[in-house]
Amino acid sequence: MPEFLELLPPQEALETLLSHLKAAPHSEEIDTRQAVGRVTAVPVIAPHPLPSFPRSTVDGYAIIAADTYGAGEALPAYLNVAAEVPMGAEAGVELTPGSCALIHTGGMLPSGADAVVMVEYTQSAAANEVEILRAVAVGENVLKVGEDVAAGDEVISAGVRLGAAEIGGLMAIGSTRLAVVRKPRVGIISSGDEVVPPDAALKPGQVRDVNAYTLSALVQDAGGDPLLYGIVPDQYAEMQAVATLAMEECDLVVITAGSSASTRDLTAQVFDALGEPGVLVHGVNVRPGKPTILAVCGGKAMIGLPGNPVSALVIASLFVVPVIHAYLGINKTRPRPSIDARLSINLSSQTGREDWVPVRLVPSPQGYLAEPVFGKSNLIFGLVRAHGLVCIPADANGLAAGEPVRVFIL
Amino acid sequence: MPEFLELLPPQEALETLLSHLKAAPHSEEIDTRQAVGRVTAVPVIAPHPLPSFPRSTVDGYAIIAADTYGAGEALPAYLNVAAEVPMGAEAGVELTPGSCALIHTGGMLPSGADAVVMVEYTQSAAANEVEILRAVAVGENVLKVGEDVAAGDEVISAGVRLGAAEIGGLMAIGSTRLAVVRKPRVGIISSGDEVVPPDAALKPGQVRDVNAYTLSALVQDAGGDPLLYGIVPDQYAEMQAVATLAMEECDLVVITAGSSASTRDLTAQVFDALGEPGVLVHGVNVRPGKPTILAVCGGKAMIGLPGNPVSALVIASLFVVPVIHAYLGINKTRPRPSIDARLSINLSSQTGREDWVPVRLVPSPQGYLAEPVFGKSNLIFGLVRAHGLVCIPADANGLAAGEPVRVFIL
Repeated sequence: MPEFLELLPPQEALETLLSHLKAAPHSEEIDTRQAVGRVTAVPVIAPHPLPSFPRSTVDGYAIIAADTYGAGEALPAYLNVAAEVPMGAEAGVELTPGSCALIHTGGMLPSGADAVVMVEYTQSAAANEVEILRAVAVGENVLKVGEDVAAGDEVISAGVRLGAAEIGGLMAIGSTRLAVVRKPRVGIISSGDEVVPPDAALKPGQVRDVNAYTLSALVQDAGGDPLLYGIVPDQYAEMQAVATLAMEECDLVVITAGSSASTRDLTAQVFDALGEPGVLVHGVNVRPGKPTILAVCGGKAMIGLPGNPVSALVIASLFVVPVIHAYLGINKTRPRPSIDARLSINLSSQTGREDWVPVRLVPSPQGYLAEPVFGKSNLIFGLVRAHGLVCIPADANGLAAGEPVRVFIL
Repeated sequence: MPEFLELLPPQEALETLLSHLKAAPHSEEIDTRQAVGRVTAVPVIAPHPLPSFPRSTVDGYAIIAADTYGAGEALPAYLNVAAEVPMGAEAGVELTPGSCALIHTGGMLPSGADAVVMVEYTQSAAANEVEILRAVAVGENVLKVGEDVAAGDEVISAGVRLGAAEIGGLMAIGSTRLAVVRKPRVGIISSGDEVVPPDAALKPGQVRDVNAYTLSALVQDAGGDPLLYGIVPDQYAEMQAVATLAMEECDLVVITAGSSASTRDLTAQVFDALGEPGVLVHGVNVRPGKPTILAVCGGKAMIGLPGNPVSALVIASLFVVPVIHAYLGINKTRPRPSIDARLSINLSSQTGREDWVPVRLVPSPQGYLAEPVFGKSNLIFGLVRAHGLVCIPADANGLAAGEPVRVFIL
């Protein structure tokens, strides 16, 4: 039996792994309309200002502000309505003192105009004449050219994962094609002589492969491209052959070990044979997931996950997801969404070890209660019943009932 | 100019809309491995228990617990090692008193065995003999048949959106095909005479279509299937024709109005002509997004969104997303992820109106500060710079600097 002589804390283990990575996926140009969830490879620069013309933010009359000085309900200013500004085109008139133009929200200010008065503060007078019932300041109800973005501004930096707002911004400046980072390819190898494909009928002693599919979902969600290499028998030659192929084809290789200690040793041997420096971390001070193996071979990350499905998912979120994000060059300014809750019961843990506990959120008058869902073992349907994970930090020997906790969503 | 005579609060407006919906999308059977993000149409029942055989949770020896009673370091129990349990198969032996079997984590207990002793508490004695250095209770280190799930258990109810854990659970019970709700089809119509496609060169007064693409991203994220109907001129006949087609083909139709009041009126007229009951809500007491239009025609939802891109996204998250979720039958037990922060400055608002303010999260020693990102207008790149939205409830007339707020992630 191997001893886990040196158990690194998860954060330190991750830093060790990341510091040895070399390969960075290339970028590719794609249609921006297909780019949700992708990551910018280079900064995006605005080719022109936004708005590109002075725009009205209200329905009303484009005016020369000076014409309204001193105006009020009792003493309206009378202006001549020279034109109606068409939507999507120039006004076609130039305002002169004493004249104005009917304008709609989003319309382009006529030249000469420097403000817009809302229609609510006007009143029709004679034909082509309007009463202005209040004074208006220069620039009022007008979006200036470049008020959102100036020409040449860096509007989106490199390493940004694109959501709805970013796609909208790119459309606004006409960036319909975009350089994004190629999705990191993540090879997933299942092992364990007891593991059979999900559509197999179970013989006694067999279990279906769960990890390949939970990991695929997690990898896709993190922005990677999962490639499944099937279930490999617990034998060195076969595992070595499949891992070599996966390493050639992928940026990151994950082996979900069979659950026994011997198959974990096999994973470590295979990683060591794949290239320098080989295994960097064998065992992490975290529960679940102690028998995690982290390696780098030829600049690519290799991760050996525990066979238990819950451990595999927790460890993948602690190591596989950050490696994918590192390959993508995602800059880490966005905080991870979570829900604040209070613990429903006391949770004990071992000082020095970081624990991740699946919890269910139960509404209460004082906000959410986080209720640990597990009894004796980490079962996959236990995780299905959970809403997220609570971390008991390494420097605590547990958390007390009622203590505020942050629940990270699965 | 129409008056917004009756401004409903957003929640009441949504309930009015949902109460008139009739159509429910059908279900379809798909490969479970492609089902991430889809929603179960019917409950999933376990066809067999999990685990399906008694499993060891550790590496050690399968034993008859009674053989270890009274055992300890000073007085070990000596057991005959009858076999090694192979992974993925039956042990092929039946334990009799005084015998045990070497077993690996995940291995199947031999018949007769009722507990497992961890290898750490054993020591090799003679050939085929092992010393057990502590007493073990019945059931120790064993997962019983059905301990995760019993045969016939409802393991996932209808209306659950599937994530990695659920996919894993389905694989574990061999559910490789699954009935999911068909994705609701959301027709998106852009309007506004000033609006041109994103790849167009801008003429003075024109802006590129942003809303069709931000909405597409939001609809996909919510579990719907966006269908774009292009940019329709602000004329009744043309809008009516396109909206009729979209209503036939989709479950929900969204028109992003041009920004002027006249195009919003057009949207309302078109909805009223499409079927009973027509427009239910014209104007919602929310900022941004007051000129929202909610209608139901022939049991299908029709939503008129403001033209401003930020307003359109905020309103779509308040109305379009819940309608998609209602069509999908998603049960609302999962809380919405958010980040708790403290407001960086005072924010004023009008009592009676619900305000949604885009904020940026800035780390501070006391946790995150939520910093409103907007100046005078709701600009798309302002939203790009934001991390989420803070809600100022209708019963407040603002929020003070330092007040704790919940930031909903965009």
